[in-house]
Amino acid sequence: MSIPDKQWAQVIEKTGGPVEYKQIPVQKPGPDEVLVNIKYSGVCHTDLHAVNGDWPLPTKLPLVGGHEGAGVVVAKGEQVHDIEIGDHAGIKWINGSCLACDFCQQSDEPLCGKALLSGYTVDGTFQQYAIAKAAHVARLHKDIPLDAVAPVLCAGITVYKGLKESNARPGQTVAIVGAGGGLGSLAQQYAKAMGLRVIAIDSGEDKRKMCLEQLGSAAFVDFATSKNVIKEVQEATEDGQGPHAVILVAVNEKPFQQAAEYVRPRGSVVCIGLPAGAYLRAPVFESVIKMVTIKGSYVGNRKDTAEALDFFRRGLIKAPYQVVGLSELQKVYDLMHEGKIAGRYVVDTTK
Amino acid sequence: MSIPDKQWAQVIEKTGGPVEYKQIPVQKPGPDEVLVNIKYSGVCHTDLHAVNGDWPLPTKLPLVGGHEGAGVVVAKGEQVHDIEIGDHAGIKWINGSCLACDFCQQSDEPLCGKALLSGYTVDGTFQQYAIAKAAHVARLHKDIPLDAVAPVLCAGITVYKGLKESNARPGQTVAIVGAGGGLGSLAQQYAKAMGLRVIAIDSGEDKRKMCLEQLGSAAFVDFATSKNVIKEVQEATEDGQGPHAVILVAVNEKPFQQAAEYVRPRGSVVCIGLPAGAYLRAPVFESVIKMVTIKGSYVGNRKDTAEALDFFRRGLIKAPYQVVGLSELQKVYDLMHEGKIAGRYVVDTTK
Amino acid sequence: MSIPDKQWAQVIEKTGGPVEYKQIPVQKPGPDEVLVNIKYSGVCHTDLHAVNGDWPLPTKLPLVGGHEGAGVVVAKGEQVHDIEIGDHAGIKWINGSCLACDFCQQSDEPLCGKALLSGYTVDGTFQQYAIAKAAHVARLHKDIPLDAVAPVLCAGITVYKGLKESNARPGQTVAIVGAGGGLGSLAQQYAKAMGLRVIAIDSGEDKRKMCLEQLGSAAFVDFATSKNVIKEVQEATEDGQGPHAVILVAVNEKPFQQAAEYVRPRGSVVCIGLPAGAYLRAPVFESVIKMVTIKGSYVGNRKDTAEALDFFRRGLIKAPYQVVGLSELQKVYDLMHEGKIAGRYVVDTTK
Amino acid sequence: MSIPDKQWAQVIEKTGGPVEYKQIPVQKPGPDEVLVNIKYSGVCHTDLHAVNGDWPLPTKLPLVGGHEGAGVVVAKGEQVHDIEIGDHAGIKWINGSCLACDFCQQSDEPLCGKALLSGYTVDGTFQQYAIAKAAHVARLHKDIPLDAVAPVLCAGITVYKGLKESNARPGQTVAIVGAGGGLGSLAQQYAKAMGLRVIAIDSGEDKRKMCLEQLGSAAFVDFATSKNVIKEVQEATEDGQGPHAVILVAVNEKPFQQAAEYVRPRGSVVCIGLPAGAYLRAPVFESVIKMVTIKGSYVGNRKDTAEALDFFRRGLIKAPYQVVGLSELQKVYDLMHEGKIAGRYVVDTTK
Repeated sequence: MSIPDKQWAQVIEKTGGPVEYKQIPVQKPGPDEVLVNIKYSGVCHTDLHAVNGDWPLPTKLPLVGGHEGAGVVVAKGEQVHDIEIGDHAGIKWINGSCLACDFCQQSDEPLCGKALLSGYTVDGTFQQYAIAKAAHVARLHKDIPLDAVAPVLCAGITVYKGLKESNARPGQTVAIVGAGGGLGSLAQQYAKAMGLRVIAIDSGEDKRKMCLEQLGSAAFVDFATSKNVIKEVQEATEDGQGPHAVILVAVNEKPFQQAAEYVRPRGSVVCIGLPAGAYLRAPVFESVIKMVTIKGSYVGNRKDTAEALDFFRRGLIKAPYQVVGLSELQKVYDLMHEGKIAGRYVVDTTK
Repeated sequence: MSIPDKQWAQVIEKTGGPVEYKQIPVQKPGPDEVLVNIKYSGVCHTDLHAVNGDWPLPTKLPLVGGHEGAGVVVAKGEQVHDIEIGDHAGIKWINGSCLACDFCQQSDEPLCGKALLSGYTVDGTFQQYAIAKAAHVARLHKDIPLDAVAPVLCAGITVYKGLKESNARPGQTVAIVGAGGGLGSLAQQYAKAMGLRVIAIDSGEDKRKMCLEQLGSAAFVDFATSKNVIKEVQEATEDGQGPHAVILVAVNEKPFQQAAEYVRPRGSVVCIGLPAGAYLRAPVFESVIKMVTIKGSYVGNRKDTAEALDFFRRGLIKAPYQVVGLSELQKVYDLMHEGKIAGRYVVDTTK
Repeated sequence: MSIPDKQWAQVIEKTGGPVEYKQIPVQKPGPDEVLVNIKYSGVCHTDLHAVNGDWPLPTKLPLVGGHEGAGVVVAKGEQVHDIEIGDHAGIKWINGSCLACDFCQQSDEPLCGKALLSGYTVDGTFQQYAIAKAAHVARLHKDIPLDAVAPVLCAGITVYKGLKESNARPGQTVAIVGAGGGLGSLAQQYAKAMGLRVIAIDSGEDKRKMCLEQLGSAAFVDFATSKNVIKEVQEATEDGQGPHAVILVAVNEKPFQQAAEYVRPRGSVVCIGLPAGAYLRAPVFESVIKMVTIKGSYVGNRKDTAEALDFFRRGLIKAPYQVVGLSELQKVYDLMHEGKIAGRYVVDTTK
Repeated sequence: MSIPDKQWAQVIEKTGGPVEYKQIPVQKPGPDEVLVNIKYSGVCHTDLHAVNGDWPLPTKLPLVGGHEGAGVVVAKGEQVHDIEIGDHAGIKWINGSCLACDFCQQSDEPLCGKALLSGYTVDGTFQQYAIAKAAHVARLHKDIPLDAVAPVLCAGITVYKGLKESNARPGQTVAIVGAGGGLGSLAQQYAKAMGLRVIAIDSGEDKRKMCLEQLGSAAFVDFATSKNVIKEVQEATEDGQGPHAVILVAVNEKPFQQAAEYVRPRGSVVCIGLPAGAYLRAPVFESVIKMVTIKGSYVGNRKDTAEALDFFRRGLIKAPYQVVGLSELQKVYDLMHEGKIAGRYVVDTTK
C-alpha cells in the first residue's frame, strides 16, 4: 500500500465556511497514532455546527471536518501494537484522550479534559487520509461494509449510549422524541435490539407508517395533531403511568418540558441533542414528588462503540443513507441548512 | 393503658388557618392500622404549606397536621401481627400505601398513587392519638428518645434519601446548598456518617463556624460574599473538577443553575426542597457534554426510614431542637412564616 | 358465581406419597386473601420434592401440592381492594409474605422469613379452589390463556429472575446449561427477548436443532460429545473470552465447575436449580484473578412476576406443554420420577 | 538528579530462591514509561509466592521482586506528558496494561490479558530504580510519607477494592475474616472510613482488643473459642440475620463455607486471598434460597488506587509497619515463611 504525499480534502478556512475542496498534504502518524485511508465518511449536524462556529467551543482553523470515517489502516506509529496495517478502522468524534485522567480511568474518555475531537479540534475524516490515536479508533470487522457503517460511528453510538444511560431495562418502555429523523430511527432500532418497547413521537403519516411498520415501534404519537400529547403518551403504556424513559434526540424547550410531565415516576429523561443556546426546564414540585431524573448523554466511550458496532454487525441495525462524492460536501451542507435531509448522507472520498 | 374518648389536637378548619387547639374524638384503628399515642411531634415547613394550601395538591379539611410524630402503640387492628401494643413507633409523611401497585412492588411506596399523607390527606400527629397503617409506622427501639427522634422522622429521612439518590460513594465529595439550615445540618451529618467529604454552601460567619467546626465539613463557601461561587466550589475539591454530587435543600432557581455548572462531569444535582412554583433550569449544551444528572428526590421509603433511624440510634446524628407545648403550635407557624426559625421545633402533646 | 362446599383435590397424606385424588372442603379466604377457582396448574419438579420430602425444609401434612395455578378470583376478604371477583389470577410459589420485614421492604419477598409457600407450607393449586394472599397473586390479563400461562408462573418467572440476576446486558452473551429442558427452553426465549445472545449447552441432535432453529440460540455446545467443553464455549464468543454470564438450570457439581472456568473474567455464574445435597465448588485462585461471581437465584418477586408475564403476553415466550386431568397427577409424577418428561405437564382441574 | 549506571537490587536467580543482594544495571524507560527511584518498598506474601513459584503462573527469571514501591520519578519516555520528573509515584502490582482491550476499555486493567505484573512478570521494586508504564504508576501527593504509604500500594488497595466489590453500603455491616492480620487491620479501617459497621473475626485476646479498641470494630468473634461461629456472627447484627457482606482476607475452605452460612440473605462473600490450591465450596440449596453471592476480588484498578490513596492521605488509614534495609530482605522472607510477621515490613533501598 503506497501512501501519496497529497490528497483531496474539504477544508474550512474560516468560520462560517464555505468548505473548499482541494489538495492538501498527507500527515504522518505520531508514535501512538494510526493513519487511516478513509473510504467513506458520514455527514452529521455537528459538522455544520463546526462550519458555522455557533457552539460555545472554538474549532481549529483551518479545519478538515468529519467524524464518521471508515477506512483502512495504512500506517502506524512505533508504539502501536494492537492494530495492524490493513485492518479496518473507524474514526469517530473522540479522536484521542489522555487515558490517564480521572475520567479516562473510569472509561469516560468523552469527558477527558484533553480529548481530541475529530473534525473540530483536530482534522477529521473529510479527507482521504486521516489520523487518530490508535487506542481510540473503532475496530471494524472485515465483514462490515465501510459505507453503511459510517453513520453508525457517530449517530448510532450516540443513540445507543443514550439508551444505556436511560437505565431502561428489557421489557420496559422508552419514548423517543424525534423518532422519525436520522437519530430517531437508529434509536428505535437499538431500543428494539435491546429488548425495549418503543413509543415513537414525531409528526406526519409517513413517519407514523415508518415507525410502526418498518421500525417495530409499539405506538406512535403525533405531537402536531395530538390534542393532548402527555395523556396520549401515557395511555400508550400498559398501565397509563407513562414510559420508563424518554430519549430526546431533537431537543428544544417544549418537548423537554412535556417529557418531564409524561415520563413515569422514577423515570429518566435523557437529552442527547445539542441545540445551541437551549435550556432544560422542569417544574421542581412535580419533578421531586415523581422522583424524575433528567440527564445529558454525550457520545459513547470506546466500549459503547464496540457494543454499538456489534449490534450493527449482527444485522439488527439498518441506517438508511445515500452516497455522494466528497467533492459534493457543500451541497449536503446546503440541504442540511434548509432542513431538507432525509436519512444520512455518506461521502465517498474517491470522488 | 386506657385510651380516652377525647383528646387535645390542633385542627385546621379552613385553608389559610389559623390552627385551633381543641378537643376532638380519638379514632379507632382499622384492621391493618395502629393507634399511636403521640408523645412528641416535629414541626416541618410542609406543615405550613398544608395550612396555607399553596401546593398543587389539596389537603383534607378539617385537618390535623403533623408528620414527625413519635410515641407508643396503644391499639391495633386484628390483621396486625408484627408490631405490638407498647412498642414505640413513628408516624411519618407516608402514612400508608397500597403495598400492591407497581411502585409499592419496587419499594417506592412514596410514589404509590394511593399513598396516604400524614397531616395532609389524612389526620397527622398534632394530636395525642394518631392512626397509621401498621406496615408503614417506623419501628423505634426503646433506647431512642422520643423527642430527639421526632425531626429525624421527616427531615432526617429526607436528606438521607437525597444522599442515597445522589449515588455519591464513600470518599467522594458532596456539596450541600443551604448547609446551615435544619435540613442542611442533618445532611452534613448523614453525609459524614456515609463516608462522604462535604462542601457546605451557605452564608454568614456563624454558619461557617458551625459547618466547619461542629459538623465536620471540609470546606465552606459563602454564596453571599464569594466573588465566584462556581470557581470557589470547584477549587474546594482536590482536582478542581467539582463535587461528585450536589444536594439542594433550599432550592430556588439561582442555586440550581449554579449547581449544574460547578458539579463534576458525570455528577448529580439532587433537589429535595419543594418551593411552590419554582423551576429547574440548566443549559442543554453544558449538561450534555458534561453528562450531568439532575434529579428530584422525595421522602424515603420504609427501608430508608429504618436505615436513617439506625444512623441516629448509633449516635452519629444530632438534630438541634427545642420543645414547646402542642398548644403553642400557632406561634411556631408564626415564627416560621417570619423566617425566624433556627433548628427544629418539637411539640409536646401533653402541654 | 356460586362456590361449592366440596371440591376435588390431590392430597399428600404422608411424605413419600402417593397423592390421593379425593373430595375435600373448600376453604374461605381470610381478610387479606382471595379464593381462586383454579382452572389449570403446571407440574414442577419441586412438586415431586414436596411429595418425596427430600429437601431440608419440611412440608405441611396433609398437603395439597401445586404452585403454578391459573384461574379466576371467586371470593375475597374485606381488606382486599385492588383485585376484584371475576379477575384472572395466578397462584405461584410465594403464596404470601409479611410485607413488613427487612426483606419485604426491599422487594425481596421470597427471602421473607414468614413467606408462605404454595403447595409446600400451605395448600397449593392441585385443587379446584385455592387460597393466596391478595397482595401476592399474579394479575393475569384476560387475554392470557389460563392453560398456556400455568408453566410460566414458576418456571418462566424463575428463569427470568435468574437472567436478571446475571446482570448480563443486551448484546452480551449468556450460556444456558441444560438449554434443551423445560427451564432451559424458557430461559433461551427470555434471554432472546431481553436482547441477549445465547450459547445453548446440552446434548443430542434433537436438542441442538431445537435450540438453534426454533429457539434462536447463536451456538450449541454438546457437553456429551465435545472434546473440550470449556474451549468450545469460549470459542462460541466473538473474542474467545467466554460468555458474560452462565445460567445453570440443571446444576450438578461438574457443570458448575466448568462454568466457573469458561465464564468471561468479571462474569457471573447463576445457579437456579435446587438439587438436593449438591455443592458449588470453584478454584479460589482462578476465581479471584478472573473476578468471577457465583450466585444463587431463587424465585422472582412480585415485580419480576409481572415483568415475566408481560413478556409472555406480548407473545415472546412459548412454553410447550400438554394438558391432562388433575386426576392423573400421579402418572405425571411417575413419568417425572423416571426422567421421561419432555416439556411441561399442565393439569385441568375439571377432569 | 543524576541517574547512576549501577544500583543495588535483590535478585531471584532461580525459583525457590534465595534472593541475592547485588549490583545490577539501571534500565532506561521506554517511550511510554517512567523510571522511578524507589525509596521504600513493602513486602507482601505475594513476593514469597514469586520466590517459591507455587502459583499456577510462572515468573520471569532472573527476577527482581517487589510491587509496593514508593519513590520519585527520575526519567520518562518521550510519550509521557502527564507526570513530571520530580513527581512522587508508586509502583504497584499492575505495572502496565494494554489500555485498549475489552477489559481495559471498561477500567478492568487488572484483567487485561497483556497486564505486566511488577516483581513477577517484569522486574519490581526491590531495587533502587524501577520501571513502570506511566499511565499506571500511582500519583502520590508530596505530603504523603513514602515509607508509610508503601504497604497501602498493594495491601490497602486490595482490601479497599474488596470492600467496593462487596456492594455493602454505608450503615450496613461487614464481617472481616482474618481481621487481626495485616490485610485485616487495613480492611477494618477502610470499612470504617466507608461508613460500614464491622464484625471482626479472628482469634486471641490481643487481636480482640486491637480490633475493638484501636480499629473501631463493633464486635469481635473468636473463631477458635466460639462454640458456634455462625450463630455468634449473626447475633452480632442488629436483627440476627447476619452481615451484609463478608470479606475473606485469609481464605481456606472452612472459613469460606461458614461465611456462606452466616452471611445475610442477598449478601456477598468476597474472597481476596490467594491460597495456592484451595477451593470455594458452598451448599447449592442454601445458597439459592438465600440468594447468596460469592465473588473473587483481585487487585484494584487505577481509579481504586487513587481512591484508596486519598483515604490514606486524609489520615483515615494507619498501617503499622517496620523499616529494614533492602539488604535484609531474605530475613523478612524467612520470618514470613515461619509465620512470624506482625504488621508489614518495608525495605529502605538505601541500606
